[in-house]
Amino acid sequence: MSKLVPFRSSDNAEPEMHQQGISAWIGCKDLALLVDFYELTMVAGYKATHRADQRACFDYYFRKLPPDTGFAVSAGLEQVLDFLQQVRFTSEDLRYLAGMSIFPPDFLDYLRDFSFTGDLWAVPEGSVVFAGEPLVRVEGPLGQVQLIETFLLNTLNYATLIATKAARVCLAAKGDPVIEFGLRRAHGPDGGLSGSRAAYIGGVSSTSNVLAGRVYGIPVSGTQAHSWVMSFADELEAFRAYSEVFPEKLVLLVDTYDTASSGLPKALKVFQELRAKGLTVRAAVRLDSGDLVSLSKLAHRMFTEAGFENPLIVASGDLDEQRIFHLKQQGAKINCWGVGTQLITSYNFPALGGVYKLSAVEQDCRWVPRMKISSSPEKMTLPGRKRLWRCFDRQDRCIADVIALADEDTPKTSELPVVDPDHPEQRKRLEGIARCEDLLTPVMLAGRRTLARESLPLIRQRAAQTIESLPSDLKLLENPRRYPVYLSDELARLTQQLIQDNERNR
Amino acid sequence: MSKLVPFRSSDNAEPEMHQQGISAWIGCKDLALLVDFYELTMVAGYKATHRADQRACFDYYFRKLPPDTGFAVSAGLEQVLDFLQQVRFTSEDLRYLAGMSIFPPDFLDYLRDFSFTGDLWAVPEGSVVFAGEPLVRVEGPLGQVQLIETFLLNTLNYATLIATKAARVCLAAKGDPVIEFGLRRAHGPDGGLSGSRAAYIGGVSSTSNVLAGRVYGIPVSGTQAHSWVMSFADELEAFRAYSEVFPEKLVLLVDTYDTASSGLPKALKVFQELRAKGLTVRAAVRLDSGDLVSLSKLAHRMFTEAGFENPLIVASGDLDEQRIFHLKQQGAKINCWGVGTQLITSYNFPALGGVYKLSAVEQDCRWVPRMKISSSPEKMTLPGRKRLWRCFDRQDRCIADVIALADEDTPKTSELPVVDPDHPEQRKRLEGIARCEDLLTPVMLAGRRTLARESLPLIRQRAAQTIESLPSDLKLLENPRRYPVYLSDELARLTQQLIQDNERNR
Repeated sequence: MSKLVPFRSSDNAEPEMHQQGISAWIGCKDLALLVDFYELTMVAGYKATHRADQRACFDYYFRKLPPDTGFAVSAGLEQVLDFLQQVRFTSEDLRYLAGMSIFPPDFLDYLRDFSFTGDLWAVPEGSVVFAGEPLVRVEGPLGQVQLIETFLLNTLNYATLIATKAARVCLAAKGDPVIEFGLRRAHGPDGGLSGSRAAYIGGVSSTSNVLAGRVYGIPVSGTQAHSWVMSFADELEAFRAYSEVFPEKLVLLVDTYDTASSGLPKALKVFQELRAKGLTVRAAVRLDSGDLVSLSKLAHRMFTEAGFENPLIVASGDLDEQRIFHLKQQGAKINCWGVGTQLITSYNFPALGGVYKLSAVEQDCRWVPRMKISSSPEKMTLPGRKRLWRCFDRQDRCIADVIALADEDTPKTSELPVVDPDHPEQRKRLEGIARCEDLLTPVMLAGRRTLARESLPLIRQRAAQTIESLPSDLKLLENPRRYPVYLSDELARLTQQLIQDNERNR
Repeated sequence: MSKLVPFRSSDNAEPEMHQQGISAWIGCKDLALLVDFYELTMVAGYKATHRADQRACFDYYFRKLPPDTGFAVSAGLEQVLDFLQQVRFTSEDLRYLAGMSIFPPDFLDYLRDFSFTGDLWAVPEGSVVFAGEPLVRVEGPLGQVQLIETFLLNTLNYATLIATKAARVCLAAKGDPVIEFGLRRAHGPDGGLSGSRAAYIGGVSSTSNVLAGRVYGIPVSGTQAHSWVMSFADELEAFRAYSEVFPEKLVLLVDTYDTASSGLPKALKVFQELRAKGLTVRAAVRLDSGDLVSLSKLAHRMFTEAGFENPLIVASGDLDEQRIFHLKQQGAKINCWGVGTQLITSYNFPALGGVYKLSAVEQDCRWVPRMKISSSPEKMTLPGRKRLWRCFDRQDRCIADVIALADEDTPKTSELPVVDPDHPEQRKRLEGIARCEDLLTPVMLAGRRTLARESLPLIRQRAAQTIESLPSDLKLLENPRRYPVYLSDELARLTQQLIQDNERNR
């Protein structure tokens, strides 16, 4: 078995997450207060003005993609659904809130009885998505759908950010396995744990995070630290000792002293000694510093000349998709990539600006659209309950996405009148449509999941297949094409009408 | 009472954290596997080679400060101590590891019996610290001190990063209160929770994160969201309804439609209506978009001309220390700052490159220094068990820090021979020393805390006082002076000697 295959535990046929949900590691019931304070005061206000049970509709979307990024990979939905099913305010929560002497008793009673009974439509986890698109639509009593805002944003923003970054890193690695090494630089314990899950959805092969292995069933892997080598007086002795303990899982870290003159020759000696004992040996090293191009070529030459074919050469050390791309361009003989800090923090873009905006309220059994009309155009919102279509051509390539109103029918025509939201004055026709797919599907109705729990491998496979099918100019790591996201003609008209109404009313 | 005073719960005299430690929100015993896989294989290797109980010493330090940053604020120690006292491998953990079919049974027994029995020296939380300095020194059986690496790095790196960023934001705000608003953009639930704690240490006045209020006793505060305003057909109606529910805690969000022509005049009208009812009103608004300089001046003028003195004008919307600095320079009439994304992710530098490096191993009852000698000079480590001195002049201003060996005596002289680690060939004399303070103090011995739990307000006050006392050129937000961190003469000699030994042995 190749050393590239990471470890799975046989105990892990049913990873914990699939049995117990997010509460496997953190008590969901204790997370009800993971909420911005103003959500509580506003819901107290809704309650006091008898509007907490009025139905409302919110959209989750993000405003822009990371730099030089052509698409995002949605993630975090399972965690949100787990939370919504389980969230309750504990007696400690209520005692704490009562102690603030600001909330009326009937509001605290409301929280005591709180459970989520709303509806969710969402794109499946592992979908390819774009800026401005409603990725989750939430409908339910105003008090409830307001109160879940913070958790939903916290979870979806981070997971989608990391799944997207991982997808880029894996594109750069062009099929080589990528190991997620980020736990030590992640933002807290859960930054590491949720981050590993999202990175796996985005395409990494394994993680160094053992808890992510136990909780989510993600394959785990690792090599060796400098401390192992330094704990011995001599590097050769350190390598030999490790080879005796793990002769078949040996990846030696060769840069503790001098890679070219010490680490590599001594590693080679140990592989030769193992071979002399009759073992089948794959030479395997990790390079963590120095000129990775020349050192990897040297390692490859040394090992193959000594008869070790196809050596495993793992590289690490502040790698990101750009460095991997350039190392490959320069002919580095690296065939496995350990990516930590840059991946788990999405270093060059460490926050996805996802927002959750009111789009409609129900009055007299009718949905009334709402919109934010700001002097900052990028802070405008789109009104009304919405759906989202992906349009494909006859070769089944996606050609554009269209944000439409929820009561519009999925188009059956080959043409569609649409509006580019950046140029609302120009109407245009989207042509050559062979079929349109509805991306938002019901995942929760009246507080109960309607989407069966999806396994992580399934979600990961969805992401891989969708990315594989994307036009290649969306997958460029620099200056990718901007994928068109249009408004349906009806949605564009509604938006214009509300802007005009607002101007008239001032 | 001014609205600037955020809410505390009377239930919070003893915040939960102080009673139950980190397990208040997450079961520490379930975090034993929050570890990089190679830690486990290495410790299995130490065990197999009969070295798991050999004593070893590790240092935690970070290699460089964030850009344009003159100092860092240490944080996260209490969380590490809680973890070390409580960490155990559960039977589920062990079953999972056994299922990997790689670990020998006696190693799993070792983990079953695992508890941390080592010693820690550390700088107190809330200390001002610099790059390259040992901030935590860990000594104990090699297997144990290796196994805690990942958790320690994960926790200290993130907490120190955010406390440092918060200190900069508060320097820019020049005494105005700063509210931490980052939960929705934090990296997962704990990114938000640990991040709020660290930001409070760094100087923010309050947080929007209610769970951080309950668990850590941090004051919480907040205003109003666009969704409140949008849920009403009319902005004035929305403001009025809120003023009826919270007449004394009213901060109106005025940018949902048009700040100057709609939001501000309607807010003023509501404040006037409240005053007409005989209430004592402080006009208070939040600006979340647009030209914050001119809008805040307009708001200030409108309110003061209407007789509302000292209006509270809160600003938010992608603020960081640079924007706050420039807004103040341009005369913005803002006196409270809501800072979210940029703070909770340390956006321009989202990972502190903290590392944990072996510095010595015990052999035959003697400590033998160890060091990593890399072709990348910045990856070199300093050998030996260490201490850290801060040297003050007669005016009690800090003049330099000195990293020394643990068995050196704290200097009593006014001069000290030192070496700049960037110019190891030049010896120099540090002069004008009035006293030297030992920064590393014992906090845990044989697995038991020797440092009593420190309250969060105490830690926060330590940070505030130390920052206050710093030379002002270290506190510049651009191009601060680089504070000198030297090696003691003895440490410099040891380092050179090990480099020479290594060259001879090759």
